[in-house]
Amino acid sequence: MRIDKVLEGDIRSAARLMRDLDDRVPSAIEELKALYPHTGNGYIIGITGNPGAGKSTLVDSLISVYRNASLRVGVVCVDPTSPFSGGAILGDRIRMQRHASDSGVFIRSLATRGQLGGLSRSTFDVASVLDAMGFDRIIIETVGVGQDEIEVMKTAYTSVVVTVPGLGDDIQAIKAGILEIADVLVVNKADREGADRAVRDLFHMLDLRGGVGRQEVEIVKCIATLGTREESGIADVAKAIDSHRGRMGQQEDARRKERAKAHIAELVRGMLADRADATLRAQGGLDGLADGVVRGEQDPYTAAESVLKSL
Amino acid sequence: MRIDKVLEGDIRSAARLMRDLDDRVPSAIEELKALYPHTGNGYIIGITGNPGAGKSTLVDSLISVYRNASLRVGVVCVDPTSPFSGGAILGDRIRMQRHASDSGVFIRSLATRGQLGGLSRSTFDVASVLDAMGFDRIIIETVGVGQDEIEVMKTAYTSVVVTVPGLGDDIQAIKAGILEIADVLVVNKADREGADRAVRDLFHMLDLRGGVGRQEVEIVKCIATLGTREESGIADVAKAIDSHRGRMGQQEDARRKERAKAHIAELVRGMLADRADATLRAQGGLDGLADGVVRGEQDPYTAAESVLKSL
Repeated sequence: MRIDKVLEGDIRSAARLMRDLDDRVPSAIEELKALYPHTGNGYIIGITGNPGAGKSTLVDSLISVYRNASLRVGVVCVDPTSPFSGGAILGDRIRMQRHASDSGVFIRSLATRGQLGGLSRSTFDVASVLDAMGFDRIIIETVGVGQDEIEVMKTAYTSVVVTVPGLGDDIQAIKAGILEIADVLVVNKADREGADRAVRDLFHMLDLRGGVGRQEVEIVKCIATLGTREESGIADVAKAIDSHRGRMGQQEDARRKERAKAHIAELVRGMLADRADATLRAQGGLDGLADGVVRGEQDPYTAAESVLKSL
Repeated sequence: MRIDKVLEGDIRSAARLMRDLDDRVPSAIEELKALYPHTGNGYIIGITGNPGAGKSTLVDSLISVYRNASLRVGVVCVDPTSPFSGGAILGDRIRMQRHASDSGVFIRSLATRGQLGGLSRSTFDVASVLDAMGFDRIIIETVGVGQDEIEVMKTAYTSVVVTVPGLGDDIQAIKAGILEIADVLVVNKADREGADRAVRDLFHMLDLRGGVGRQEVEIVKCIATLGTREESGIADVAKAIDSHRGRMGQQEDARRKERAKAHIAELVRGMLADRADATLRAQGGLDGLADGVVRGEQDPYTAAESVLKSL
């Protein structure tokens, strides 16, 4: 049985299962259901932040910290920005090269398949498989900071938001709602000018943030540099993640419940979308309806309602 | 009738209609259907790019160019990054101040209501209302470059992607799949070091891009600075947009058809999601199912299937 091999940690079986899950092969979904009782031991960490903040390098450095503590690490790199040319494949090859031959590390890239929301579903799936395989830490890394990435962060128990000095003078940087989901804030490239100002700005923004007070969010400075001598502060990032985990205490159950709700909702949305796609395919797609809209014979709302009626 | 007032260009009626559409008030959707035959004359331009690329300033400058040509301009600022604290309100107040008192300019901000994909639907709605109101140019501006923003760009006939010098050495910048939807590429802040290198990098990336050749995408350098003497190249950006419109020629029908397909698909997804939400509310939400998942009595897939069966 393939799931026995997956539970033993067999990489090739796991990779094939993940691919089948991506393709929504029904038997693979049954296998995932069977794996599910074996999940819940891996600790899932989300890492997100602005492009250029050095997230991949930080993840690479965190892997080293965890490996030095003999923890097995699974990584999911989530890239919703390249729906057309499979950008995630490039990422797989370039990033985290030095861990490629370490059997205690498993890195998997996920690109969107052009379907909104499908990415969170795939992330939940891959994280569950890695969890069942016995990885101690599962890192979910996103490429950017869009709404999709915020959804993806719901798969994590601790969310780390990475930023860099020098973005503080930009309205868009302040507006990044991603801050609102942070459990740990990291100022990377902290040897750059403006690092202390960035920390101050973040403290100020946390003050403005309603609900959760700043005392519950740690701000950590670091320099992630693929293990060169200049590297510093990575152990502090790992410690801040552990501290958040500790602080959660009994709240961890509430978090797990929120996560389960997000996962079920995501699956329901996905199943509905699959159903809609199947119906549209059976009807020969949207070409006829779209032609009617372009010719001005019908408005898009009426067209959509006619699709829904046929479901 | 409210729609008569909207067709006459009455701002307050239009703003109320947009709010009702956001709230999915059924009568407002009927009004939108009635407005639809009056759309198709406004030219819809999408503007997207990395946070910090100066998109808002560029939009502000473009408004001036169009206003000088006596064209009426509607602007939709789309911000999917702040689902919790309504960040778009801040944007409304700070940005584009100097056009606030010009009756030939109407600026509307859109933030996500926490529902994936809902943002594209709202953008289509608001753009349709602005179009029916008789605005000659409708600019859709996004805050970031995520998958959501790529979806939002499907509402536009011409997509402008804005970047700045100095991002070229970053893998994430290269991976930004947003490049693949560009009709016009703008290098803003072109007085910065590395502007020519940025243009070269973009040419190179266009070469790598399959399908559409680089000859079909214009790259324009500019400096957008809220109308100070240092400003330059904004007219070139407007010209590149017009050129793309001209080049489209007969292809414009194909583009309108693709747009209609995207709109209908978006509406179908939204209607399905609404239906799922209503069912979940009627069942008292996902709490019971999530508890079962956390206690390990059920896997999320089986839980989701039980929701779907009850639809």
